[in-house]
This record gives sequence, structure tokens and C-alpha cells, in this order.
Amino acid sequence: MALLAYGAPAGDKPLEPMTIERRAVGPRDVQIDIAYCGVCHSDLHQVRAEWGGTLYPCVPGHEIVGHVRAVGAEVSRFQVGDVVGVGCLVDSCRTCASCEEDLENYCEKGWTGTYNGKTDDAPGHTLGGYSQQIVVNDHFVLKISHPVDQLAAVAPLLCAGITTYSPLRHWNTGPGKKVGIVGIGGLGHMGVKLAHAMGAHTVAFTTSESKRQDALDLGADEVVVSRNPDEMAAHVGSFDLIVNAVAASHDLDAFTALLKRDGTMCMLGVPEHPHPSPNIGALIFGRKAIAGSLIGGLAETQEMLDFCAEKGIVADIEMIRIQDIENAYDRMQKSDVKYRFVIDNATLAA
Amino acid sequence: MALLAYGAPAGDKPLEPMTIERRAVGPRDVQIDIAYCGVCHSDLHQVRAEWGGTLYPCVPGHEIVGHVRAVGAEVSRFQVGDVVGVGCLVDSCRTCASCEEDLENYCEKGWTGTYNGKTDDAPGHTLGGYSQQIVVNDHFVLKISHPVDQLAAVAPLLCAGITTYSPLRHWNTGPGKKVGIVGIGGLGHMGVKLAHAMGAHTVAFTTSESKRQDALDLGADEVVVSRNPDEMAAHVGSFDLIVNAVAASHDLDAFTALLKRDGTMCMLGVPEHPHPSPNIGALIFGRKAIAGSLIGGLAETQEMLDFCAEKGIVADIEMIRIQDIENAYDRMQKSDVKYRFVIDNATLAA
Repeated sequence: MALLAYGAPAGDKPLEPMTIERRAVGPRDVQIDIAYCGVCHSDLHQVRAEWGGTLYPCVPGHEIVGHVRAVGAEVSRFQVGDVVGVGCLVDSCRTCASCEEDLENYCEKGWTGTYNGKTDDAPGHTLGGYSQQIVVNDHFVLKISHPVDQLAAVAPLLCAGITTYSPLRHWNTGPGKKVGIVGIGGLGHMGVKLAHAMGAHTVAFTTSESKRQDALDLGADEVVVSRNPDEMAAHVGSFDLIVNAVAASHDLDAFTALLKRDGTMCMLGVPEHPHPSPNIGALIFGRKAIAGSLIGGLAETQEMLDFCAEKGIVADIEMIRIQDIENAYDRMQKSDVKYRFVIDNATLAA
Repeated sequence: MALLAYGAPAGDKPLEPMTIERRAVGPRDVQIDIAYCGVCHSDLHQVRAEWGGTLYPCVPGHEIVGHVRAVGAEVSRFQVGDVVGVGCLVDSCRTCASCEEDLENYCEKGWTGTYNGKTDDAPGHTLGGYSQQIVVNDHFVLKISHPVDQLAAVAPLLCAGITTYSPLRHWNTGPGKKVGIVGIGGLGHMGVKLAHAMGAHTVAFTTSESKRQDALDLGADEVVVSRNPDEMAAHVGSFDLIVNAVAASHDLDAFTALLKRDGTMCMLGVPEHPHPSPNIGALIFGRKAIAGSLIGGLAETQEMLDFCAEKGIVADIEMIRIQDIENAYDRMQKSDVKYRFVIDNATLAA
């Protein structure tokens, strides 16, 4: 069956309407009518071939929320009509040590991305959520229990939410801990909400004085304008964890100095140009670490969705029509969005 | 009482014989006749003012083994004649969170180094182990239970030993773990011995084909010549921990690639020129970390000494007369020592 989608025919072409096919529903598959799809920075990078290796046509989108349209014969966890989500992964080897530990996001054979991943389905690579439907193995489908009127704002939890939730949990965020979130954008605004909801003393770092009140509104206990050395100095040696959501090249030493002994700064973004080489002495004199974290596993993503539903957490979004996607990309590049664009997929048929 | 020592009157002067004073033995003090003192790279860096901030005259030495000559009235842990050691620290605040957790090496007020540290004693800064005696607060004195004929080879445990032991323990080295040691010098040769003794599968990394057999003799289960890409590739994604004892600027990515998911590379040395900026993506795609570690606390140093005594572990040393110290420095800079010089302090009186 031909489905409407939006995608790019090549890296130097804008997104355009196109029709795509989805595979027939197999015994372990869930067929989903997509209601909303969040717009992630990586959509832009990949559709424009900025990371290399993009396969065309490219239909981006990995923050997917929708309703189950059909399920395969062996699927018991989902029923027609259920509200479900799909994030960054639609397959993994299921047998390596990471997969066995519910960390499919670190699959040692390499997981299959929701778009631009290798697949046996036509056209040979996966096509993402800027489309009317998707068919996904049930292991990679999440249950969503938020109220129905919040579903658009739930979509970004599938990438921005889990990408910040996972390191916060892994490094034991909770009451009594002081946690910093660097960069208040799509990821960072979720990080602030989540760290606050986990009970940590949450400090938002931004380069923009203009974001100070916004960060407080998101739930930050304190806001530090990182260009202000006096504000930074007041926090030296005090953080258990800093989750750094800034991919642009910047001075990491300014933040490792703020960690406590045994503190970790977890990086979420790969910089286009390397950060200045971090000061190893700053790590040695305090047994500190610079680490990284990538999305999250399926079990943890479900845990995050349930946590957010219980706490009433969703993303702050601006809804767009699919026809406005290129304008949204332009604004996203200028950080002109609070804090995530979400596509109303009904507009595909408009 | 005037004591014989060797020190430098200035950063551009060689070490020379000098006489120094030690403070009178206070109620919590232990007065030690120094038998042996190891020669650490940091002795050379500091005595030649290469790190800045060196106070003169500078008497180096923080790998000290000797016999108790006298104890203060309130000292109960030591008696005259006991064999004892002193490492890199002779004082700390004793009240900060780190000190309270027996991690005086991360004292938040800054610990007092065994030499070149601020003190009320004349001449206003501490003087180290290239001398006949030292007077140290009993909290910073270690018990040594090795056989008496091994004492010279015990001295390097007080810095090189604990500096490698602490990260190995902190990151849970033991049976079933695969641990790499990068750089087979003063620190690294201890790292290999200790990781092996802790039961880990121990892999030594060296740039020198000529050190392959030596590393096996030290206890490595495998040796990798890190200049050989094929040898490196065989270990991709396999290490729980890599302890990197190389301070010279080098490619860290070559080693983070060898870590398993959740693996850590712990750096022990501060490079004079920064390492090439590490690939953050390599950390993200595997939740890996680059960390640092500094010496160890007093309780852990005692644990290390007891572990080494039980396992029969000492350093591989070359004994020197104090009069040959400048020659030893020159050879140390060329890595022409297997693996640590130790001064016979009796030669101070020669």
C-alpha cells in the first residue's frame, strides 16, 4: 500500500512529498498510524548528508507517536487502538551482551535506526516518521499512558527524553544530588524537567541571559549563564553530574572544574569540530570523568515514558504542518524554537 | 639537629649535598631514619621547576622507607624500630568530605606534599626523602610488613604502587575482568604486577617491541605493541578498564576504541602538551569514560602495602648512591631504567 511521506531525494534537495511502501505486517509486527513526529537535530544532519552515509530517498523522524492499526499473530503486548511510540531504534541483534542486558542502544552488532538503517524492506533502508504509517517489530514499540490531549508533546520523549533520562538514571540522579544540564534546547529542556522530577538540585547552564527565566520555568533550581565567570566560580567542585547537551565545540574544562570528586560530565553530542582538548589534570585531581551516553534501551525508554506520565512531564513543543518542515529546520538551526518542533502527521494528507 | 640531605638550591642548579633541620618530635609525630627513597619522575619535574611553583631549596623524594627512631607521646600505632613508609602526603585538612572518607589524596583544602608543600616548619616548605630523617604526623605513616631484605624495592610502592593500585581497585579489577596497562615504566610495571595479582586478564601496552618479553615477565597475560594497528584491532571493544600511565601526548582514541561498553580509561599523568582532543563519539557509542586518578588515600595505601606483602610484590629496582642522582635523572628521562631507581640513603653520609 502506498503511503504519503515527506523526504529528500538527495542531500542537496529540500524535503518533498513522496509515496513510500511499508512491509506487510509480520507475526511480530505492529502497524502504527502515526499521529505526531518530533523534529530532531539529527533529522536535519542526516537528511542533508552532514554526517555522511545517508541513503536516499531519506524520510527522517524518530520521535513517533501514534495508534496501533494492526498487530501480527504473535503480538500480545499491543492491541488495535493502543497509543504507542517508536523512538530511534527499530531493530537490534537481540543476542549480544548489550541486547541481553536490555541495552539495545549499545548493540554490539549495531542497531537499526528508525530511518537510514539497513533493512530487507524496500528500498533497502529504513524510512522514518515523517510518514502516515510505520511497521515495527513489537519489541521496539513503547506503550504510552499520557492523556490523549498530550500526545504531540509526548513525541519528543522518544529521543530527547530518553537521551537525557538515561544518563541521569545511570549516574544516580535523585534527592541529595546536584545535577547540571548544559544547553537549554531540545535535549536540555527535557534534562532540566527530568532531573528536577527525579528530585535533584538542578542547575541549568545557558550562554543566553535571555533563557534565565525560561530555565527556571522548566524547573531549574538555579540558572548559570556560563559566559559569566563569577557565576561559574560560585559552583566550583559542587556537581555530582553534569549532562552536557551542547554539541558545538566548547571549553569542557569550564565544566569539569565544577564537578565534585568522583563527579562525571556526560556528553550527549558529537561536535562537528573537536572540543579543545580537555585538561587531564582536572580529571586526575578529583577522580573525575568525561563520559558519553547514547539514547537508551527499550526497557529504560518504557520506564521513562511511565515516569513522565506519572509526573505529568511532556516536552515543550511548537506544532507544525509537514509542509513547513524546511522553515522549521532553518529556525531549529538558529535555536529559534521552544523547545521542539512536532509534526502533525495528519497534514501529510492535506 | 642538622641532617644530611641532597637538594637543589635553584631550578637551574644540579642537586648538591646540604644540611637541613627537621622539627622536634611532637606528640603525634613519628621520627624516621630513612633507609631508602625511590626516585619518581615528579622529583625531576619539580626540582627543575618544570611544573612551576617549586620552592627552594628543594629536597625531593616521596617514596620513603625507613625505621622508626622515636615517636611522640600520643602515638600508639608505631614503636621504635618499626619498619615504616611515607608516600606523597604528609598532611591534609582531616575534616573535609574527602578526608572523612579516607581519601586524603583528594583533600578539598589541598593536601601537603612530602616535599614542596607549605608547612610551618623551617624553611616554610616540606623537604622530602633524599635525606637522613623525616618527621611525620602518625596518620601519614604506613606500616610495612615485607621481609627486611626487600625494603629498597618496597619504596616505590609508596607512589608508583598506590597510584596504580587505587584506580585498579576503584574500577573493580579482579577475576573475569580484562584490564590494560599503557606504558611499561615506573608506574606501568607496578600496574601490570598489581592487575595480575588481583586476578584480572592483564594486557600490557607498550610502544617498544623490545619490552614484550619484559612485560610478560612482569605478569602480563598478553602484550600489545600499540604502534601495530593489527595488534590493537584484535582487542577492540574488549577492556573493562585501561590504566594509562603515559603522560606524553598521544592518541587517546586508539585506546577508548578498545574499551567495552561502560569501560573506563583512567589517566594517571598530566601531559606537558595536551593529547589530541579525544573523540567524544567514541565515548557516546558505548557509554565509555575517560577519567583520572591521583595516588591514593592513607587507608588504601596501607591496604596496598599489605596486599603486596601477602602476594610477594615489590618494584623492580636499580639501587643508586645519592651522589649518582643527576645521572639517574638523565637515564630516567630516556626510560633507561627497569623500572625504578631507589636511593640507598646510607650513602648520604658517605
